[in-house]
Amino acid sequence: MNSFGRLFRVSIYGESHGIQIGVVVDGCPAGISLCEDDLKEDFARRRAGGIGTTPRIEPDLPRIVSGVYKGKTTGAPISVVFENTNTKSKDYENLWDQPRPGHADYTGQQKYGSNNDPRGGGHFSGRITLGIVAAGVIAKKILAPIKIEAKLIEAGGSTNIEAAVKAAVDAHDSIGGLIECTCTNMPKELGEPFFDATESMIAHIIFAIPATKGIEFGSGFASARMKGSEHNDIFTNNLGSTKTNYAAGINGGITNGNDIVFRVAVKPTSSIGVTQETFNFKTNKIESLLIEGRHDACIALRIPVVIECATAIALADLILLEQQRSRVF
Amino acid sequence: MNSFGRLFRVSIYGESHGIQIGVVVDGCPAGISLCEDDLKEDFARRRAGGIGTTPRIEPDLPRIVSGVYKGKTTGAPISVVFENTNTKSKDYENLWDQPRPGHADYTGQQKYGSNNDPRGGGHFSGRITLGIVAAGVIAKKILAPIKIEAKLIEAGGSTNIEAAVKAAVDAHDSIGGLIECTCTNMPKELGEPFFDATESMIAHIIFAIPATKGIEFGSGFASARMKGSEHNDIFTNNLGSTKTNYAAGINGGITNGNDIVFRVAVKPTSSIGVTQETFNFKTNKIESLLIEGRHDACIALRIPVVIECATAIALADLILLEQQRSRVF
Amino acid sequence: MNSFGRLFRVSIYGESHGIQIGVVVDGCPAGISLCEDDLKEDFARRRAGGIGTTPRIEPDLPRIVSGVYKGKTTGAPISVVFENTNTKSKDYENLWDQPRPGHADYTGQQKYGSNNDPRGGGHFSGRITLGIVAAGVIAKKILAPIKIEAKLIEAGGSTNIEAAVKAAVDAHDSIGGLIECTCTNMPKELGEPFFDATESMIAHIIFAIPATKGIEFGSGFASARMKGSEHNDIFTNNLGSTKTNYAAGINGGITNGNDIVFRVAVKPTSSIGVTQETFNFKTNKIESLLIEGRHDACIALRIPVVIECATAIALADLILLEQQRSRVF
Amino acid sequence: MNSFGRLFRVSIYGESHGIQIGVVVDGCPAGISLCEDDLKEDFARRRAGGIGTTPRIEPDLPRIVSGVYKGKTTGAPISVVFENTNTKSKDYENLWDQPRPGHADYTGQQKYGSNNDPRGGGHFSGRITLGIVAAGVIAKKILAPIKIEAKLIEAGGSTNIEAAVKAAVDAHDSIGGLIECTCTNMPKELGEPFFDATESMIAHIIFAIPATKGIEFGSGFASARMKGSEHNDIFTNNLGSTKTNYAAGINGGITNGNDIVFRVAVKPTSSIGVTQETFNFKTNKIESLLIEGRHDACIALRIPVVIECATAIALADLILLEQQRSRVF
Repeated sequence: MNSFGRLFRVSIYGESHGIQIGVVVDGCPAGISLCEDDLKEDFARRRAGGIGTTPRIEPDLPRIVSGVYKGKTTGAPISVVFENTNTKSKDYENLWDQPRPGHADYTGQQKYGSNNDPRGGGHFSGRITLGIVAAGVIAKKILAPIKIEAKLIEAGGSTNIEAAVKAAVDAHDSIGGLIECTCTNMPKELGEPFFDATESMIAHIIFAIPATKGIEFGSGFASARMKGSEHNDIFTNNLGSTKTNYAAGINGGITNGNDIVFRVAVKPTSSIGVTQETFNFKTNKIESLLIEGRHDACIALRIPVVIECATAIALADLILLEQQRSRVF
Repeated sequence: MNSFGRLFRVSIYGESHGIQIGVVVDGCPAGISLCEDDLKEDFARRRAGGIGTTPRIEPDLPRIVSGVYKGKTTGAPISVVFENTNTKSKDYENLWDQPRPGHADYTGQQKYGSNNDPRGGGHFSGRITLGIVAAGVIAKKILAPIKIEAKLIEAGGSTNIEAAVKAAVDAHDSIGGLIECTCTNMPKELGEPFFDATESMIAHIIFAIPATKGIEFGSGFASARMKGSEHNDIFTNNLGSTKTNYAAGINGGITNGNDIVFRVAVKPTSSIGVTQETFNFKTNKIESLLIEGRHDACIALRIPVVIECATAIALADLILLEQQRSRVF
Repeated sequence: MNSFGRLFRVSIYGESHGIQIGVVVDGCPAGISLCEDDLKEDFARRRAGGIGTTPRIEPDLPRIVSGVYKGKTTGAPISVVFENTNTKSKDYENLWDQPRPGHADYTGQQKYGSNNDPRGGGHFSGRITLGIVAAGVIAKKILAPIKIEAKLIEAGGSTNIEAAVKAAVDAHDSIGGLIECTCTNMPKELGEPFFDATESMIAHIIFAIPATKGIEFGSGFASARMKGSEHNDIFTNNLGSTKTNYAAGINGGITNGNDIVFRVAVKPTSSIGVTQETFNFKTNKIESLLIEGRHDACIALRIPVVIECATAIALADLILLEQQRSRVF
Repeated sequence: MNSFGRLFRVSIYGESHGIQIGVVVDGCPAGISLCEDDLKEDFARRRAGGIGTTPRIEPDLPRIVSGVYKGKTTGAPISVVFENTNTKSKDYENLWDQPRPGHADYTGQQKYGSNNDPRGGGHFSGRITLGIVAAGVIAKKILAPIKIEAKLIEAGGSTNIEAAVKAAVDAHDSIGGLIECTCTNMPKELGEPFFDATESMIAHIIFAIPATKGIEFGSGFASARMKGSEHNDIFTNNLGSTKTNYAAGINGGITNGNDIVFRVAVKPTSSIGVTQETFNFKTNKIESLLIEGRHDACIALRIPVVIECATAIALADLILLEQQRSRVF
């Protein structure tokens, strides 16, 4: 299912080298001001450009083709489309025989057989996250005054991110990264006790972002080594503020008004300029593979805005759910 | 929404001190042998009893009251119910004024107001995971020959689990733990590229288990410090086996046939026998709170079976989805 | 899927002669007063008793086993259960060979194979609608001040219902009926333009009631013979009242504040005391079949309350959806 | 929610006079041959042209922009888009003050406020059914060898359809119609006992088609006047064939292999060239309204193909569901 959300429902489609990538957002309330310029900033953040990012430059100009009238959302589904223009028609057929390690080449062909679109990763491409960013920009408008900010706090194990990326570029290799995301001005009451806990909803959509390997909220993995007497967040005032925030603003799946804080582990890009020895399914033996083309040395550089937008989508859904629930009686 | 799954749909209900806890499993195929004895082993694993676990002993005898005829599932919804018998009617009203740090007392009363059932944590209680275990036992039958095994590999930061737990008990404190779960004999093709990635589905349900603070798949958080040249899992044969398994058996959200491996961080139980200084919302000042009663010093001891069962539910849903998809043409 | 609704979610389970029938209502707001007595009136209306209805008397005493605390809903799932006590263990095995015409015996065995529970119709039994009634009683509380009233306006083609039923009983035969349902005090704005039109939601759940053969809203089938100039409902005042109500209070799938009116065709009960010549799948020839036992001569007598409750469920879901949507901005 | 289906999931978007109308089909299996030419025939049937249909001619050239590679579906979401080119920018603002009787003008403005797009009916337009037709063409490919055929059997109460339409055109009025749809070569086992009965699924999507006022299956409303002894469909052979087919091929919500037959009542188009006396919400009095422009005198002429395609979507979803369920064990 290429959809997420119960009330703020996001459906994405498209392939890296297909004709069009897009997103449909269903359930957005009417009356929100929205135009294509609103998308510019987050698209620029996501776009390639700096050192350590792929030189493929797509203009990524989004068109809003439905759901907006006179600059405001109408309540009908909002469709945002992106034409793919900069697609090189190189031969991806050899990837069939020798699937790239760490990519979805192999699982794609196992799942969809010869119908899998191999060009540029097809539907598995990180480029499809354009739709998540577009939907996230809309979601953020619903969320105001909540603020979501994600940033790369470590790359390749180092906090000197620039140097680490440069070293990876020079080595034709790639490196992973650690991203921290903080949501401030949080309302209370979002989320549900079971199955749709706030953490469940956020984790669900974060793992839909290619290259995600782990997520931890607040104390996270450190909590496994802690005692209850140090981990419990003591209430300090009648607003429900707490002395510490190991709970990351969530108890029993429900937000308590304190900041949501979580960290995401991003693996190093699978596409590297280093020769790899890997199995060739046609010749039936291990052979050298050198992946041509230009790639992201540190995809984690471009992911913070995607994480922000994905989180905004999850919170927008929870907020609409809560508004419905809390309004009766 | 207290439900999980699209095709293998699990709905849970009940409160810690309510009349009945239960689970309805909808979408289970007909013809699977199922009786109450099948539930015994996993219920025994989940149940209290050892050192470091609460002395409240519920018989936890499940009754299967629908969906089974002559020892086999009929294809109709399966309902499993548990009566609550050992509920002490102590006064939980004071928790309203001075909510326990780390619990859902505060968020429960914020979300549901004075209607929140405070007795023993109400619907937020870990006891509700009985339903997850019952549904998981059924799910495992669909999954055969897949094997899922979760175990506690660390408690309070130590691999000498027994000693760590004993120390916590002696200190009237609690400790967290780290659980590793491995799924073997995995089929290929489960999961979907976006939103319903295998990791998304598993993480969603794992975070529904109270006390979960983080999840990482394969290389997990370590991947953030790795290079692509070391992280890529090299294919070694025509079965798709890989030299390493940093991907945890999943590429692009889809299983590749190698083992799924993930780790879950469990926080220390919030209920401790140590006095805590925390805000009293009635008197409007910080006061001492000593929680009476007997609690789990290390809830992580009891969670491995819940993680296994939750994972089984997520995989059962993905397997039914895949069977539908792969069968046409 | 034995569930209905997106926000007011109803899941039913059970078999006619199984251990327990039940319903889980998820998504009901907190703070609604609810006790078992509230269910009595509608259960009495649904229950057998009068002429033309089956003499099987189940006490049908519902137990609310979760989701209610101190007489009010808590916001957690509400589970209502009914024990089956009056089940005669007669032999239903012969129905396997010679499935009853008009029943689900044949389709049940085709779909679920030998695992289908044949006793009293198993999960296909009209008795499962007990769960719809229980959920509907809860739904009606959300809907106030909307009033829903369904009544049998014709039986066996006659408006002299009592006489028609008596004739059917005397002939050991059964008759169908026509039920009209009216919802008054309707709010505007419920429903959505496509797929979740108000008519779509109501029709979906009404066809889940066994024996339903047709549904028409307002002008219904008569509209096919009308002209636009006579069919259009002219607005008469600034409340949006209309001169006629052929639209049944719905335009473009959305309620306009006028009454919703629809009619449901109910077929004659398939179980009759008349010998039928029908195929025996074991002997491979057409043979006489006389169904023993006592049955409803006019099941339509008992269905109005089920239609009311089903309609209440559909409207409750639409109302919760609308409240969410209309609250932002 | 502008989506339908659990496994074959159809999401539509767009406005009559917006930039683009489209549909996203998620869950279509890989390997189905599909190209834009496949859509031509059904689009031609739906398109305006004959007497009694609107002279607005949209080229309606669909573009398939994702989910197809080398002429076959890939398993990824299929997106089909239609540009709106023939939109007259006339002033629809006056409809705000004096909403057209029988249209969604009034409910649209009530639900979405001043943000409702009034141009040509906006998202309420029958033009949005283009997406249903596109998705239905894809669905039919999954359904083979099932055949679905819908035809107009009556217009304005007359079987001499051409004459009835001509009379309506001459009178600047409109007429309703009756459409019968038959599905042959049906497999057994589709549908579920409660809530997702075959009739529920079909009725749900049929009522999403603008102008639908009623639906009846098999004996339909006539069944309300019948006796059980005449209504029961007697089995005649070991294939499950029946002497009559009052059940319309469905028992207990599940298909029995016989034809599905249902009839749909379509109301007369609300847009007529006759002056109507209706309330003006600005002047606060009843005034004359003459709707300009050219309209369908008998929209029922164009709906059969939409009904076929909608039915195909519902059956495709049920078929995928059944394949999943029946494959285990």
